[in-house]
Amino acid sequence: MEKVIQIALLGAGTVGSGVVKVLEMNRRQITERVGAPIQLKTVLVRTLGKARPELASYQVTDKIEDILNDEEIDVVVELMGGIHPAREYMLRAMEAGKSVVTANKDVVAQFGKDMFDMAERQDVDFLFEASVGGGIPIITPLKQCLTANKVTEIMGIVNGTTNYMLTKMTECGSDYNTVLKEAQEKGYAEANPSADVDGLDAARKAAILASLAFNTRVELKDVSVEGITKITPADIDYAKNLGYVIKLLAVGKDSPEHGVDVRVHPVFLPEDHPLASVNGVFNAIFVRGNAIGEAMFYGQGAGSLPTASAVVSDIIDVSRDILHHTFGRVRCTCYEKKKLCPLKETESSYYVRLLVDDKPGVLGFVATAFGDAGVSLKSVIQTQRNIIEHAEIVAITHMVRHEQMEQALDVLNGLPVVDEIRSVIRVEKERG
Amino acid sequence: MEKVIQIALLGAGTVGSGVVKVLEMNRRQITERVGAPIQLKTVLVRTLGKARPELASYQVTDKIEDILNDEEIDVVVELMGGIHPAREYMLRAMEAGKSVVTANKDVVAQFGKDMFDMAERQDVDFLFEASVGGGIPIITPLKQCLTANKVTEIMGIVNGTTNYMLTKMTECGSDYNTVLKEAQEKGYAEANPSADVDGLDAARKAAILASLAFNTRVELKDVSVEGITKITPADIDYAKNLGYVIKLLAVGKDSPEHGVDVRVHPVFLPEDHPLASVNGVFNAIFVRGNAIGEAMFYGQGAGSLPTASAVVSDIIDVSRDILHHTFGRVRCTCYEKKKLCPLKETESSYYVRLLVDDKPGVLGFVATAFGDAGVSLKSVIQTQRNIIEHAEIVAITHMVRHEQMEQALDVLNGLPVVDEIRSVIRVEKERG
Ligand SMILES: NC(=O)c1ccc[n+]([C@@H]2O[C@H](COP(=O)([O-])OP(=O)(O)OC[C@H]3O[C@@H](n4cnc5c(N)ncnc54)[C@H](OP(=O)(O)O)[C@@H]3O)[C@@H](O)[C@H]2O)c1
Ligand SMILES: NC(=O)c1ccc[n+]([C@@H]2O[C@H](COP(=O)([O-])OP(=O)(O)OC[C@H]3O[C@@H](n4cnc5c(N)ncnc54)[C@H](OP(=O)(O)O)[C@@H]3O)[C@@H](O)[C@H]2O)c1
Repeated sequence: MEKVIQIALLGAGTVGSGVVKVLEMNRRQITERVGAPIQLKTVLVRTLGKARPELASYQVTDKIEDILNDEEIDVVVELMGGIHPAREYMLRAMEAGKSVVTANKDVVAQFGKDMFDMAERQDVDFLFEASVGGGIPIITPLKQCLTANKVTEIMGIVNGTTNYMLTKMTECGSDYNTVLKEAQEKGYAEANPSADVDGLDAARKAAILASLAFNTRVELKDVSVEGITKITPADIDYAKNLGYVIKLLAVGKDSPEHGVDVRVHPVFLPEDHPLASVNGVFNAIFVRGNAIGEAMFYGQGAGSLPTASAVVSDIIDVSRDILHHTFGRVRCTCYEKKKLCPLKETESSYYVRLLVDDKPGVLGFVATAFGDAGVSLKSVIQTQRNIIEHAEIVAITHMVRHEQMEQALDVLNGLPVVDEIRSVIRVEKERG
Repeated sequence: MEKVIQIALLGAGTVGSGVVKVLEMNRRQITERVGAPIQLKTVLVRTLGKARPELASYQVTDKIEDILNDEEIDVVVELMGGIHPAREYMLRAMEAGKSVVTANKDVVAQFGKDMFDMAERQDVDFLFEASVGGGIPIITPLKQCLTANKVTEIMGIVNGTTNYMLTKMTECGSDYNTVLKEAQEKGYAEANPSADVDGLDAARKAAILASLAFNTRVELKDVSVEGITKITPADIDYAKNLGYVIKLLAVGKDSPEHGVDVRVHPVFLPEDHPLASVNGVFNAIFVRGNAIGEAMFYGQGAGSLPTASAVVSDIIDVSRDILHHTFGRVRCTCYEKKKLCPLKETESSYYVRLLVDDKPGVLGFVATAFGDAGVSLKSVIQTQRNIIEHAEIVAITHMVRHEQMEQALDVLNGLPVVDEIRSVIRVEKERG
């Protein structure tokens, strides 16, 4: 008799219901590509009472045991989110000999190693393509298509909410609070937007990407994080005039001198950089490797069907492994313990915006202060933006260590002519 | 004893020498990722006499039998190019039980099915990631990461030479012959540039992409092809003013009504389309699927190391299959026989540029002629570009069947006020 791959879903929210839909609408193609039908058998929900017409053809339960103890179920697809109880359920599913597919960045970023270890011990799959970049294929490319490379750099726009907000600020000149409200009204931002706007969501994804790209364990706590809450229309405007756009990036670098450096923060990105034209809720991940040079992966980073595209493609991958008994073909090799680069040792150039007294000689004074602190400037301009008796100075520095930059800012802060340090944003250097 | 994966290269030109270099410079990572070392054993060359210092550590031969009869060799990597004798060598290698990796778009586009059939019969791998888009992962994503989707559209900038030329024409306003000469001087175009500028290279890649994306056999002969030789600075200029850029695209569409429609030709692309900012020698492939929505894969479409990145990643994939005895896990399923859409039934909107007599009423006359031929216009403008007693009319049509467009052009050609039909270029409709 022909094998049927039986699966169970944990959670039927935005992504879960997308998975149900994709399995149904593309049933024929999927069966053909796998070589066997994939059958959704059971769905775990929190509250049994809710009307769920889309689940009418499947068993619905609120007891995880109904799934873990069901020997027919080959694959458990976790789409509940959060650490508890998702983490335990996935571990228990693998203990029961089932492969696991998940979209859960929280668990992968914090407990990825436990998951990979369990998968290896139990000889099952643990796949998580949807945890970064929604539908965009990036995990499989890193594990497979780019394996010939030593990856030296990875930069991603991996949070749709903040990218939507920055795009709107750039296009309409609106301020942070206005675009946040608009994003909330459109359902792009949560009522409590902190995980997005403070950069935590992007930091989880940065940890996952860096671990895979650099073959080393990078966890959430290793990522230095800064959000977009301090970005003002004035910064957006200066960026534009200087030939840049402001994006919130997840950045990972690996070099023999500095080690592995992973962070999330806004950057000035040259407007001809491939990531610069990634707008609205779209995501993209840019990778630099020592063979491929530059590559970029672009698409919808969230949403029911796009995310389900990645989840179902993972389910298909597991199904192929089940049919061909080929578990363990591609293992995570992120077990090296590379040195992490402390934030203070990271290097960048910076955009600095200062409010200063509007009197002769201030520009020279400030430029000298930078120089004395060992920070050399690429450009410095003084403007007056409707400010009584004050002016603004905008400087772009050459590459400088973070530590040294902080010292320079301390010095500037102490200058009587400097009234306020208004913004300090990293600048991604010109390509070339 | 630990297994060593032994490989042979056929050809050590641009890509072959890149493969040697990547295997050497990333040896440690590659061994770790595969779980066993990959050892280059033998290299086939045409002329034994040439000095080849980079091959000093390997056996060099001019006899294919030295490779085919060597039982230690697990993988044959074909990087000679062309149909003969590459095709026979690959078939014979698979007959001898060896897996094959190739970058050869000619063979895959024309004899792909023979190759896949042989691989299946012999239970070996036949991988060809580098045949489209150089280093860009696109074949594996189509076979694996996007398998949950019904792909409805694929559009690619897959020829670096022509993209470089069109980019230069757009940036500098130079004409076709000037940029061709420049591309030849820089080594981006061959002395005989026909395969690139006439669209044949792109057509091969279009056939490969469409076969994989739509699960059906599309061969080179099924692709309708038009190159960039007729593109003028005037067209580039009009495009710019109307909010478009001109790109040479490989286009594939699959719909229940029209069947599979595969072609290569220049298009007017809206300037905010993700492909519009892919400039110079970069390539990118845009995919639309019924779950993922839009996705795009971007990178270097040619060059020694980028192409070697794809070849070596395929070698790693084969090596994993060898170690885990997992051949046949992902088979090509492009065996459906879908209806092909004849060119005359394809639908597009068009940009049409006409030289007309400069007298009152001509614009109305021409617009009426379009209407009478059943072609409705989205916009029409009349200009005078330093032409004595003549003017130019530029029209953008709504969607129309190719057949009907040809009829309309016949009618226009017969109008006494129309002196010349200067350009007819398809317009990719605004994103919606
Ligand atoms: N949404 C996206 O675009 C997107 C993109 C990429 C990745 N992801 C990830 O995908 C996962 C799911 O996200 P989502 O947007 O689909 O979330 P969601 O809409 O909130 O759905 C979560 C579902 O899980 C169920 N659930 C939660 N806790 C449960 C428990 N203890 N037992 C049983 N069921 C439980 C909920 O049931 P009730 O309905 O009964 O509360 C709900 O149906 C998360 O890890 C998220 O980070 C989402
Ligand atoms: N170059 C790129 O950027 C690129 C990108 C993507 C795909 N590709 C594909 O990769 C393949 C190789 O391209 P390439 O640019 O590396 O070509 P290439 O530089 O011309 O190298 C071809 C090599 O194959 C050898 N060769 C040819 N016929 C042979 C025969 N009968 N027996 C033994 N050796 C033979 C040649 O040897 P001699 O030196 O002795 O003549 C030469 O070293 C082609 O299929 C091409 O389409 C190339």
